[in-house]
Amino acid sequence: MKIAKGQKILFIGDSITDCERARPIGEGLYGGVGKGYVSLIDALLQSGYPELGIRVVNMGVSANNVRDLKARWETDVINQQPDWLIIMIGINDVWRQFHSPFIHTSHVYIEEYESTLRELVKDALPVTKQLVLMTPFFIEANRQDDMRTTMDQYGIVVKRIAEEIDALFIDTQAAFDSVLKELYSASLALDRVHLTQAGHMVLARAFLNKIAFEWSKD
Amino acid sequence: MKIAKGQKILFIGDSITDCERARPIGEGLYGGVGKGYVSLIDALLQSGYPELGIRVVNMGVSANNVRDLKARWETDVINQQPDWLIIMIGINDVWRQFHSPFIHTSHVYIEEYESTLRELVKDALPVTKQLVLMTPFFIEANRQDDMRTTMDQYGIVVKRIAEEIDALFIDTQAAFDSVLKELYSASLALDRVHLTQAGHMVLARAFLNKIAFEWSKD
Amino acid sequence: MKIAKGQKILFIGDSITDCERARPIGEGLYGGVGKGYVSLIDALLQSGYPELGIRVVNMGVSANNVRDLKARWETDVINQQPDWLIIMIGINDVWRQFHSPFIHTSHVYIEEYESTLRELVKDALPVTKQLVLMTPFFIEANRQDDMRTTMDQYGIVVKRIAEEIDALFIDTQAAFDSVLKELYSASLALDRVHLTQAGHMVLARAFLNKIAFEWSKD
Amino acid sequence: MKIAKGQKILFIGDSITDCERARPIGEGLYGGVGKGYVSLIDALLQSGYPELGIRVVNMGVSANNVRDLKARWETDVINQQPDWLIIMIGINDVWRQFHSPFIHTSHVYIEEYESTLRELVKDALPVTKQLVLMTPFFIEANRQDDMRTTMDQYGIVVKRIAEEIDALFIDTQAAFDSVLKELYSASLALDRVHLTQAGHMVLARAFLNKIAFEWSKD
Amino acid sequence: MKIAKGQKILFIGDSITDCERARPIGEGLYGGVGKGYVSLIDALLQSGYPELGIRVVNMGVSANNVRDLKARWETDVINQQPDWLIIMIGINDVWRQFHSPFIHTSHVYIEEYESTLRELVKDALPVTKQLVLMTPFFIEANRQDDMRTTMDQYGIVVKRIAEEIDALFIDTQAAFDSVLKELYSASLALDRVHLTQAGHMVLARAFLNKIAFEWSKD
Amino acid sequence: MKIAKGQKILFIGDSITDCERARPIGEGLYGGVGKGYVSLIDALLQSGYPELGIRVVNMGVSANNVRDLKARWETDVINQQPDWLIIMIGINDVWRQFHSPFIHTSHVYIEEYESTLRELVKDALPVTKQLVLMTPFFIEANRQDDMRTTMDQYGIVVKRIAEEIDALFIDTQAAFDSVLKELYSASLALDRVHLTQAGHMVLARAFLNKIAFEWSKD
Amino acid sequence: MKIAKGQKILFIGDSITDCERARPIGEGLYGGVGKGYVSLIDALLQSGYPELGIRVVNMGVSANNVRDLKARWETDVINQQPDWLIIMIGINDVWRQFHSPFIHTSHVYIEEYESTLRELVKDALPVTKQLVLMTPFFIEANRQDDMRTTMDQYGIVVKRIAEEIDALFIDTQAAFDSVLKELYSASLALDRVHLTQAGHMVLARAFLNKIAFEWSKD
Amino acid sequence: MKIAKGQKILFIGDSITDCERARPIGEGLYGGVGKGYVSLIDALLQSGYPELGIRVVNMGVSANNVRDLKARWETDVINQQPDWLIIMIGINDVWRQFHSPFIHTSHVYIEEYESTLRELVKDALPVTKQLVLMTPFFIEANRQDDMRTTMDQYGIVVKRIAEEIDALFIDTQAAFDSVLKELYSASLALDRVHLTQAGHMVLARAFLNKIAFEWSKD
Repeated sequence: MKIAKGQKILFIGDSITDCERARPIGEGLYGGVGKGYVSLIDALLQSGYPELGIRVVNMGVSANNVRDLKARWETDVINQQPDWLIIMIGINDVWRQFHSPFIHTSHVYIEEYESTLRELVKDALPVTKQLVLMTPFFIEANRQDDMRTTMDQYGIVVKRIAEEIDALFIDTQAAFDSVLKELYSASLALDRVHLTQAGHMVLARAFLNKIAFEWSKD
Repeated sequence: MKIAKGQKILFIGDSITDCERARPIGEGLYGGVGKGYVSLIDALLQSGYPELGIRVVNMGVSANNVRDLKARWETDVINQQPDWLIIMIGINDVWRQFHSPFIHTSHVYIEEYESTLRELVKDALPVTKQLVLMTPFFIEANRQDDMRTTMDQYGIVVKRIAEEIDALFIDTQAAFDSVLKELYSASLALDRVHLTQAGHMVLARAFLNKIAFEWSKD
Repeated sequence: MKIAKGQKILFIGDSITDCERARPIGEGLYGGVGKGYVSLIDALLQSGYPELGIRVVNMGVSANNVRDLKARWETDVINQQPDWLIIMIGINDVWRQFHSPFIHTSHVYIEEYESTLRELVKDALPVTKQLVLMTPFFIEANRQDDMRTTMDQYGIVVKRIAEEIDALFIDTQAAFDSVLKELYSASLALDRVHLTQAGHMVLARAFLNKIAFEWSKD
Repeated sequence: MKIAKGQKILFIGDSITDCERARPIGEGLYGGVGKGYVSLIDALLQSGYPELGIRVVNMGVSANNVRDLKARWETDVINQQPDWLIIMIGINDVWRQFHSPFIHTSHVYIEEYESTLRELVKDALPVTKQLVLMTPFFIEANRQDDMRTTMDQYGIVVKRIAEEIDALFIDTQAAFDSVLKELYSASLALDRVHLTQAGHMVLARAFLNKIAFEWSKD
Repeated sequence: MKIAKGQKILFIGDSITDCERARPIGEGLYGGVGKGYVSLIDALLQSGYPELGIRVVNMGVSANNVRDLKARWETDVINQQPDWLIIMIGINDVWRQFHSPFIHTSHVYIEEYESTLRELVKDALPVTKQLVLMTPFFIEANRQDDMRTTMDQYGIVVKRIAEEIDALFIDTQAAFDSVLKELYSASLALDRVHLTQAGHMVLARAFLNKIAFEWSKD
Repeated sequence: MKIAKGQKILFIGDSITDCERARPIGEGLYGGVGKGYVSLIDALLQSGYPELGIRVVNMGVSANNVRDLKARWETDVINQQPDWLIIMIGINDVWRQFHSPFIHTSHVYIEEYESTLRELVKDALPVTKQLVLMTPFFIEANRQDDMRTTMDQYGIVVKRIAEEIDALFIDTQAAFDSVLKELYSASLALDRVHLTQAGHMVLARAFLNKIAFEWSKD
Repeated sequence: MKIAKGQKILFIGDSITDCERARPIGEGLYGGVGKGYVSLIDALLQSGYPELGIRVVNMGVSANNVRDLKARWETDVINQQPDWLIIMIGINDVWRQFHSPFIHTSHVYIEEYESTLRELVKDALPVTKQLVLMTPFFIEANRQDDMRTTMDQYGIVVKRIAEEIDALFIDTQAAFDSVLKELYSASLALDRVHLTQAGHMVLARAFLNKIAFEWSKD
Repeated sequence: MKIAKGQKILFIGDSITDCERARPIGEGLYGGVGKGYVSLIDALLQSGYPELGIRVVNMGVSANNVRDLKARWETDVINQQPDWLIIMIGINDVWRQFHSPFIHTSHVYIEEYESTLRELVKDALPVTKQLVLMTPFFIEANRQDDMRTTMDQYGIVVKRIAEEIDALFIDTQAAFDSVLKELYSASLALDRVHLTQAGHMVLARAFLNKIAFEWSKD
C-alpha cells in the first residue's frame, strides 16, 4: 500500500470527478467528496485502512477542461498542499470538438492540452510527494470511432507527461476497454462520458490496484 | 401536398415523439403538441398551409416500446379516429437490450416487435385514411456498431410491414446518416437517441418531403 | 445560399428573439439558442447544411427596446465579432405606448427609435460582413388598428435604414399578413406579440427565404 | 339597492370569474371569492352596506364554456340555493373558434350556446329570487374584427334570453366600449380577454350600477 | 375631481400600502401597484376617468415605520417628482410597542413620530402640487383599548400636521369606525391591521371621496 | 402527580392543539406531537418524570369545531383507548360567527355546542380513566368585547359539563387573563387566537399545575 | 465466486438497504438499486464480472421491521423469484425500543422477531437457490451499551436461523467492530445506524468476501 | 429570581442554541428566538414573569466552535450590550475530532479551547452584568465512551473559567445524566447531540433553576 499514514490525497478533474462534491473544499461528512469514483476510493480507504487516517479531498469541477484547471490551479491545488495529487482531465477538451464542432473557441486542441497539462504538473511537483496521472477516456469500444481516436491521442499525451516526471500513470481507457469486451457502452454511460456507479467503480479499482490496495486485507 | 383540407394527423411513439406534449390529448395552444419533431411539423404545416386547417395530434409517451403501444392502442389511436396515423416505435425495444442487458424482461426482441407492430397496424387500417411508418433510428455512423446493427434490423421490419400494407415508409435512419456524413453523432444527440432541435428537424424534413410539402410555397 | 462556410451569425432583439437562450452568450448544446425562431433557423441550417459549419448566436433579451440595445451594443454585438448581424427591434418601443399609455418615460417614440437604430447599425457596419434588418410586427390583420398603424410606421423606418446601408431587409409584417389572411391573430399570438411555434416558423421561413436557403437540398 | 338583507348572491362563469377562488366553494376569508370582479363587488358590498350581511359566493371555473357549466349546474348552482344568480359565460365558447380553429370539437357554436344557456337559466329560475345575465365580451374596439363580431352575436343571445325570463341584463361589452374610446385594448387586457384590475373594476361598476348600489352612501 | 389630466400620484407607507407592489418602482402592468387599496384606487381611476391619463405609483414597503420612510425619502419620494403625494404611516410605530413591548429600540414614540413626519412633509412640499395625509388606524371598535387609544393619538398628530401645511387630511380610523358599528373587527382584519379586500376598499373609498371622485360618472 | 406510570394521554382539539403534529397519529420522534402546548407538556413530562414512561398523543386538527370532532370521535379518540383524554374545543365554533358573520352554515351556536360536547364526553367516559376539559379562550383583556363575551359563555358550558361528569376542569381564559393584566394581547397572539410560544406555555403550565406536576422535582 | 451466470439476486431490508431505490422494483439505470451497499455490490459485480450478467434487485423499504417484511413478502420477495435472497432486518425492531420507549406498539421483541423471521425464511426456501442472512448491527464499540447488547441478541437469532436452514450467514456487527477498533462510531454513522459511504462499503465487502468475490480479478 | 426588570439576556452558542433563530438578531415575534431551549426559556420567562419585561436574544450559529465565536464576538456580543450573557460552546470543537478524525484543521483541541474561551469571557466581563457559563454535553450515559470522556474534560475547563471570574456555572451534562439514568440516549438525541424538545427542556430547566425561577409563581 503506497499511501502512508496521515497523508492527504487530492483529486482534481471535471464532472467525472466532481459529482456534487462540497464547496469550496470537497471533503467531510454528508457527501463532501461527492458521489463518484472519489467517493468510492474514499470509502474503500476508510473501510479497508481505518488505521491509516487518510484524508481524501475532491476538487473536481463539472465542465472543466485543462484551461479551467490552469485558472484555479493556485487556489485549488497548490494552496491545498496535498501529499498526493491525482489528475484526470481532457474529456471536455475533446468532447466539445465533437458535440459543438462550430464553436471553435470552446475546443482545446492537443498542443495546448499537452503544454498546459505539462505546465500544471511541473508547478505541482515541488509541493506534492506523489503525482498520479489518469488518462481521459471515452466509453466506446470501437477504436476507429473519431472521438475515441482523438481521446486516445490525448491519453498518449498523459502517458508521455507521466513518464517525463516519473508519476504514477493510470490508463483508464484500458480499464474500460476490458469491461467493454463484455458489455455495450450504454450500460456504463448512456452518453459514453457520464458513468453509472459501475463505471465509477472501474475507475476506483484501477486507482486502488495501482497503489497496491490490499482488497482482502481485514 | 398529400394531406387534404381539414384532416387530422396523429403521431404515436416514444420520448422522441412525446417531448412534453399535453395530456391526455396532445394538441392545442401552449405547446400541446410538445417540443419535438411533431411540433416542428405542426408549425410548418400551419405557417405553410394555413388555408388547409390541418389538425395535428401528438400521442407519444416517453419510454414506450411496442408493447406499451399495444396496451393503449384502443384509447390513444383507434378512438381518436385520425385521418393520418404516423407510427415511430422501436428505439426502447432495442436500447434496453444494450443499456440493461441483464433485465431480459424489459427487452422486446425482433419477433415480438414484428408481430405486435403488424397487429397494431392492421387494427388501425380500417379507421384511418393513410398510414405512415417511420423506422426507429440510432445516431451512430458506424453500421458495424452492435446497437446500430440491431436497430437496422428493426428498421427492415418496419419497411416490410409498410410494404405489406402499402403504407408510406420513411427511413429516418437514412435521413440521419446523411447528416452523420458531416457531423459526429454527439452534435445530434449526446446519448445517440434524444435529439437536439437539429435532430428533430431532420425528422420533420423527412416527413414533410415524403408528403410533398412545398417549402417555397407562399 | 448566402451564408458561407464557417460564418458566425448573431441575432439581437427582444423577447421574440430571446426565448430562454443561454447567458451570457446564447449558443451551444442544451438549448443555448433558445426556443424561438433563432432555434428554428439554427436547426434548419444544421440539418440542411451540416457541411457549412455555421455558428448561430442568440443575443436577444426579453423586454428590450432600442434604448436597451444601445446600452449593451458594445458588449453583446461589437465584441462578439459576428460575420452576420440580424436585428429585430421595436415591438416594446411601440407596445408600451399602448399598454401603459400614462408611463411616458417607458415609451420610445419614432424619432428616437430611428436615430438610435441608425446609430447602432452604423457602429456595427465596420465589424460585420452582412447586416439583416427585420421589421418589428404586430399580429393584427386590421391595418387601421392604432397599434398596427404605429408599428407599420416603425417598420418603414427599418426599411429606410436598410436601404441607406444596403442591408438585407425582411418585412416580417408582410410575412405574417400572408398567414393572417387565413387565420385569426389569436392562433399565432394570443396577445398579438408573443408567438406560437407556428408564428416563430413564419419568421424562420422569411429569414431563410431571404438568404436563399434551399429547402429541398438533401 | 336591490339586494336585500341576508341574501346570498352567487356568480358563475369562466376564468374572468374564477381568479383563484377557493374550492370547492368560493367564499370566506383569505381570498375565498378570488381576485377578480367578484372580489371587488364583495369588497364594495361589505364596505358600503355592512349592515345588510350579504353573502357573496364565487363559482367560476377557468376555461369553462357553457357546456362545462351544464355539467356542473346541479352541484355548483342548484344545490347552493342562491338568492341571486349572476351568469357570465361565452368567452371560451367563441375564443377557441379563433385561437384553435381546427379543433372543432372544442368550439361551441351559437345554436348550442343559446339552447344550453336557455336550459340552464330555466333550471335555475325556480330556485333563485333574481337572475342576472352578463354578456361575454372581447376587449377590441373595432366592431368589424371577426372575433368581436362573433362575440357580439353571443351577447345578443344573452340579451334575448334575459328578456324572455325578465332577468336583469348587463351589457359588459358596452361598458368596456366606453373605456375603449379612451384607451387601447392592451391597457385593459393584453390578450383582449384576461383583464387588468381596471378591467375587473369596469365589470364591478357595471354590476353595481345595475343593482342601484349607492356609491356615496356612508 | 381634484386630480388633473396627466398627473402622477404617489402613495407611500407600510405593508398596507405595499401589498406586493413591483420593485424598485411600483407601477405598470402585471400588478405593479400591488394588491391593496392603491390598486383599487388605480383601478377606479383608470376605469372611471380613462381620459385623464392619471399615473399611479406605489412606494409602500412592508414593516416600515416613519424612521424607515426618512431613510428612503430622497430616493423614493423626492426623486420621483410626484404631483400628488399620499402618506399613510404610523401603524408599525405603534404596533411594536404592543406586540414586542420589551424591544424598546423598535418602538417609535409619539414625539419622534411627530417631528420626523413633519420633517418629511416639509421636505416634500416644494416638489409636489398636493399632499394628502392619511391617519394610521387600528381595526378595533373599543376606543378604550390601549393600542387603539395610542393609535388615535398618532392620528391626532397627523391631523395637526395636515392642518399646519394645509394638506388634504383623511381620517381612516373614522372610515373604519363607521363599518365597525356593523361588523366585528375580525371580518376586516384578523390581526386588526392587515386588511381584507373589504378593508382596503374602505381606504380606497375614503380617498376617492376626499378628492371628489364621481362614482356615477360614465 | 396524577398521571400514573405507563399511561397514555391524548389531546384533542383545533389548530391550537394541532401545530403540525404527525398524521394519522400524533406521536413519536421528529415532532410527532407538534410544536404547540402539547409538545411543551410532553417535553416537561419526559424531562421531569422520565421514569414514568408517559405516552403523549396529539390528535388536534386545525380549523376543527365541535362538529368536526364528532365526525372523527370514534376513530381518533375511542379507538385510541387513551387513559387520559384532554379536550379543548370551541374557538372556531365562536370565531366564525365574528370573522365570517354572513356564512351562517359555518357557525356552531351555543346550544349545538353544548349538546354535541356533552355527547362526545359521555361517549368517551367508559373508555378513559380521566377526562380533562379545557375551556376555549380569546386573547382579549376586555370582557365587554363581543367575541370575548361569547367565548366566555362557551367556557361556562365547558365548566358545566366538567362538573356534571366530575372531570378535571381547566379555565384557560383565566390563565391568560392573568398574563393579560401585564401584557397587551398582541404579544401573545397577533390575531388573539394563534399563540406565540409564550402563549402555548401558559396552557402547558395551566395543565401541569392542575395535575400536580412537581416543577422542582429533580 | 458463488454467484452463477445470469442469476438474479434480491436484497430486502430497511433504510440501510433502501437508500432511495426505484419503485416498485429497485433495479435499472439511473440509480434503480439505490445509493447504499446494494449499489456498491452491484457496481463491483458489474465492473468485476461483466461476463456473468448478474441482475441485482433492491427491495429495501425505509423504516421497515420484520413485521413490515411479512406484510409485503409475497409481493416483494416470492413473486420476484430471485435466485439469491439476501435479508438484513432487525434494526428498527430494536431501535424503537430505545428511541421511543413508551410507544410499545412499535416495538418488535425478540420472540416475535425470531418466529416471524423464521417463517419468512421458510416461505422463501422453496423459491430461491441460495439464502443469505445478514445480522442487524449497531455502530457502537461498547458491547455493554444497552442497545448494542440487545442488537447482539437479535444477531444471535439470525445466526441460529441461518444454521437451521444452512443459509450463508454474515456477521455485519463483527465487520463493523473491526473498523470500530480504529475509528469512533460517529465517523461511520452519526446516529450509529445510518451509514456513511464508508459504512456501506463495510457491508459490501463483508458480502462479497462471503461469496468469494475475486477482488484482483481483471 | 435573579433577572431584574427590563434586563436583556443574550444566549450565544452553536446549533443547539441557534435552532432557526432570526438573522441578524435573534429576537422578536414569529420565532425570532428560534425553536430550541432559548425559545423555551423565553416562553417561561414571558408567561411566568410578564411584569418584568425581560428581553431574550438568541445569537447562536449552527456549526460554530469557539474559534467561530471569537470571529464574531465584537459584533454579536459586545455590540449588543446584554445585561446577561449565557455561553454554551464546545460541542463542535470536540465532535469533529470524532466524526472527521483525519481533518485535523477542523478540530479545536483543549488548550486552544480554554485560552480562547477565557479570552472571550474576559472581553465580555466589562460590558455585562452577569455571565453564565454552560458546559457542552454529550448525550451518552457511558462515561468511559471516548467522546464523552473528552467532552467531560471540556466541561471541566468551563467550570474552571466560571470559577475564575465568579460566573454562574451550569453543568448541563449533569442535568442530562440525571435523565439518562432512566432513558436511553436515543430518546433525547438520535445522534447524541441534536436534542428532541424534551432534551431542550432539560437545558431550559437547568438554566431557570440556576437563576431561581419560581415555577409555581402565578
